[in-house]
Amino acid sequence: MEYAAIHHQPFSTDAYSYDGRTVHIKIRTKKGDADHIRFIWGDPYEYNDGKWSANEQPMRKIAATEMHDYWFAEVVPPFRRLQYAFVVTDDHEDIFFGSSGVCPYNEKTLETIHYYFKFPFVHEADTFQAPEWVKSTVWYQIFPERFANGREDLSPKNALPWGSKDPDVNDFFGGDLQGIVDKLDYLEDLGVNGIYLTPIFSAPSNHKYDTLDYFSIDPHFGDPELFRTLVSQLHQRGMRIMLDAVFNHIGSASPQWQDVVKNGDQSRYKDWFHIHSFPVTDDNYDRFAFTADMPKLNTANPEVQKYLLDIALYWIREFDIDGWRLDVANEVDHVFWKTFRQAVSTEKPDVYILGEIWHSAEPWLRGDEFHAAMNYPFTEPMIEYFADQTISASRMAHRVNAHLMNGMKQANEVMFNLLDSHDTKRLLTRCRNDEKKARALLAFMFAQTGSPCIYYGTEIGLNGENDPLCRKCMVWEKEKQNQDMLQFMKRLIALRKQENTLLTEGHLEWNLLDDKNDFISFSRTLDEKILIYFFNQGNVVQHVSLRELNIDRNKKICDAWTEQ
Amino acid sequence: MEYAAIHHQPFSTDAYSYDGRTVHIKIRTKKGDADHIRFIWGDPYEYNDGKWSANEQPMRKIAATEMHDYWFAEVVPPFRRLQYAFVVTDDHEDIFFGSSGVCPYNEKTLETIHYYFKFPFVHEADTFQAPEWVKSTVWYQIFPERFANGREDLSPKNALPWGSKDPDVNDFFGGDLQGIVDKLDYLEDLGVNGIYLTPIFSAPSNHKYDTLDYFSIDPHFGDPELFRTLVSQLHQRGMRIMLDAVFNHIGSASPQWQDVVKNGDQSRYKDWFHIHSFPVTDDNYDRFAFTADMPKLNTANPEVQKYLLDIALYWIREFDIDGWRLDVANEVDHVFWKTFRQAVSTEKPDVYILGEIWHSAEPWLRGDEFHAAMNYPFTEPMIEYFADQTISASRMAHRVNAHLMNGMKQANEVMFNLLDSHDTKRLLTRCRNDEKKARALLAFMFAQTGSPCIYYGTEIGLNGENDPLCRKCMVWEKEKQNQDMLQFMKRLIALRKQENTLLTEGHLEWNLLDDKNDFISFSRTLDEKILIYFFNQGNVVQHVSLRELNIDRNKKICDAWTEQ
Ligand SMILES: [Ca+2]
Ligand SMILES: [Ca+2]
Repeated sequence: MEYAAIHHQPFSTDAYSYDGRTVHIKIRTKKGDADHIRFIWGDPYEYNDGKWSANEQPMRKIAATEMHDYWFAEVVPPFRRLQYAFVVTDDHEDIFFGSSGVCPYNEKTLETIHYYFKFPFVHEADTFQAPEWVKSTVWYQIFPERFANGREDLSPKNALPWGSKDPDVNDFFGGDLQGIVDKLDYLEDLGVNGIYLTPIFSAPSNHKYDTLDYFSIDPHFGDPELFRTLVSQLHQRGMRIMLDAVFNHIGSASPQWQDVVKNGDQSRYKDWFHIHSFPVTDDNYDRFAFTADMPKLNTANPEVQKYLLDIALYWIREFDIDGWRLDVANEVDHVFWKTFRQAVSTEKPDVYILGEIWHSAEPWLRGDEFHAAMNYPFTEPMIEYFADQTISASRMAHRVNAHLMNGMKQANEVMFNLLDSHDTKRLLTRCRNDEKKARALLAFMFAQTGSPCIYYGTEIGLNGENDPLCRKCMVWEKEKQNQDMLQFMKRLIALRKQENTLLTEGHLEWNLLDDKNDFISFSRTLDEKILIYFFNQGNVVQHVSLRELNIDRNKKICDAWTEQ
Repeated sequence: MEYAAIHHQPFSTDAYSYDGRTVHIKIRTKKGDADHIRFIWGDPYEYNDGKWSANEQPMRKIAATEMHDYWFAEVVPPFRRLQYAFVVTDDHEDIFFGSSGVCPYNEKTLETIHYYFKFPFVHEADTFQAPEWVKSTVWYQIFPERFANGREDLSPKNALPWGSKDPDVNDFFGGDLQGIVDKLDYLEDLGVNGIYLTPIFSAPSNHKYDTLDYFSIDPHFGDPELFRTLVSQLHQRGMRIMLDAVFNHIGSASPQWQDVVKNGDQSRYKDWFHIHSFPVTDDNYDRFAFTADMPKLNTANPEVQKYLLDIALYWIREFDIDGWRLDVANEVDHVFWKTFRQAVSTEKPDVYILGEIWHSAEPWLRGDEFHAAMNYPFTEPMIEYFADQTISASRMAHRVNAHLMNGMKQANEVMFNLLDSHDTKRLLTRCRNDEKKARALLAFMFAQTGSPCIYYGTEIGLNGENDPLCRKCMVWEKEKQNQDMLQFMKRLIALRKQENTLLTEGHLEWNLLDDKNDFISFSRTLDEKILIYFFNQGNVVQHVSLRELNIDRNKKICDAWTEQ
């Protein structure tokens, strides 16, 4: 047994409260090393005849990667206190694994109380909790300048005719909020029930990530009344709306930064930023990346905190929005986000807080900051397997497993899953315009836990290279839309919504990872129901015998896609 | 190379801001596996000719355990943003270790940006920071009922004559705050400069963990004026004072609980507790352990939070105390402690917040809860080696190393190190009254990073079994005190204070772990200065040649103990 590979971190995604009562416990061993693992647990204060009262239950192997097996147990400690350890068994030996690492498995070890891990008390307050509605939401991301032009009178003077050319970085085409209102029937018919808008506040650029005024709707997009109409019509249709908050930095055209430019160290806003010397030049202050027109905000300054929190609460209180997507969330301090979470959740408890984080977001998903992150670490293995074909099916599955094992179950359930966005190549382009691959990727993503999002236009076959080409105008002429793709997406979304509980909470099992034939099968299981998926990315038709699937003979089998 | 054993957890004690600028990075490999490790890092946005600009630096092996080697690097990212990975080398191969685990070390891997770990931005606000003064503090723990009786008129009516017998659970001997005031010369002469008092608030028992009223000094201990005198005289002597806050539970004699007993579900305090049904009996509510007279407080109730925070701030604001030791801190929710930390640090920024946690306290030491914990996980291996002789020297060293590696450096530096307390056997008893062993343990603890604490009476050779016998009356008659021990402690404390910076911040290196002869040597190094320690627990006199110590010939060597 490879002792050095055994890993368990108390009070982490390895040991957490799932619902305020139930504790989830995971332990990692070297792949193939352990035959079985017993979970030893009890109340730390419960003794019988001077001996600690311990229970024992088998752990279940729930996932594997190239290098590791992951084992799982759940318990409901009767007094909400938990003391625990593991007994790992292979064909040679049993070992005890606890807070002092590997110890010989014997009476003396078992009786040494400080060799056990502790989960001292299971608190509701310390439990990661997310809004329930997210679990049944299919998202649709809109880049408002390019979705639909509903009011010519609002369009920028220099707006180009809709879809007249591929966009350049600084082009305007006149998309606006009225355009979205006008297309609500279309969106409802598509089946999506959550709309994520990239920024809509006043800003000079077409993307509006260089905010000028967080309290106003960009005049080319509309006004507060129009936005209020949009929200209320969405809500009437049972749809949610999420806005984009750019709190890492502000636009250089903002009054705050302009005051600093003008007044230097006499500016009352000088501590709103991270300025190294005065007067400010192009590079003596912290910026987003190295972008001069996006000075970084000093979120440790209480004035800035108040300013940003006021914004966050204003759009909830006045307009009843349902979510905040936080731009460059990983570069803002955790202290600020904890304050943000508390303020927002107090104002409206079921607002979804989503961080833009491209890497592992575990540090922000500990229960007191975000509910979810844009799930790029899940996107990557999917894309590398299906689109790029640079990794094998099993490598993909292993990376997906590792990523899932790195999160709490209730966090994975509300992750914001996506295949593309305004910041990446479009899915179809990433698939080298192979529509089958794009469909496979969408079907695969919709089959996994987490809240799936499609980027506007994906459903009608829009393609595009990296920014600015991933921000093309939406195509509304039916004859120019890929109607087959649209029908496919409608079916996919409908199936997702129909099997939502299973697809959110169900256990994932990889049944077949055939790297040679590029053929994979996995199942999602919840209680008595199983959904079995097959993805054949190879060139050979695969035959699957239903008998081989090991399905209980009494079970009814049907094709979920055709419902036959 | 054992890939499965390589471990690095981003934004944890493996990757943290040390001082708001410098990032500390650790990675763990199987023992003996890696010949060297290179740390690859750069700013995530810095590109040259389309290629990411990466730096490379060697990591240093800083610790080993039975199973693992730990490697360390520190960097100051120029723009406070860090993207990084590791290249691990043995005699067969180089591998790349990043956010997707082990990858082949080649150009393609190096160019795949999402294979790198991220430390997105180094924030002062997210940095674990502790009061500086703790680093130069030697603590002295007092159990007030048993330290000194300064005013007979305050003593309980049934108080027994001082030291007339070994204490039983419910005995009183009349110790009080005046007794402590009277002994300040003694304490100053001993050299300690931090006093930790177990609870002093009104409570029926002698230990006062069953609080009746958190806003009053127990009448048998004194009154607010006497306490104010104690604090001011301590401060005049440059000494600090820490009080004990029992916030997990309250005494059953408290008005709040009595109201519940009387009024049942009509009580306005019914939500202050975790009561399962009414009327309350002996076991239908959550208690500390299973102790009926210590009902657990519901710290998720805002009223309870306000009540407890008012207490915390009252004793700081009105009496200027310097620290709070938090009883059963691990069983209270993290949300409450974060609020507590913020409130206390706002009131007086350098108050030391110390949690009573017997196991790994890492979850509470992430920067926004406690500064330190009672360091029992460090106590245990020391005691098991020196006193119990149940583990070898190398096992002890390995467990100390593992424990240190489980913490941020700045947290380890202010940990509250102890060998015994009112909750354990006394040190001398644990050493089966072998004074040499007790001295060795004290010397060993004083040689390690962290803030050492001695329990009243240790310095004069007091012994005692578990509670109540570890709470004997202090012996004040000189002829009954162990004067040799006292001189030893004075020297130990003086040396600690003299070499304080080195002993707090210096690197620990185990030079010799001779399990056969029970002979160990380690060094503490900071800049040009080295302290070398030798502990011979064996039966054979050991000779050490200064030449073998590999000390630079130009260095001055002196005996730190005798100063010769
Ligand atoms: Ca328009
Ligand atoms: Ca007295």
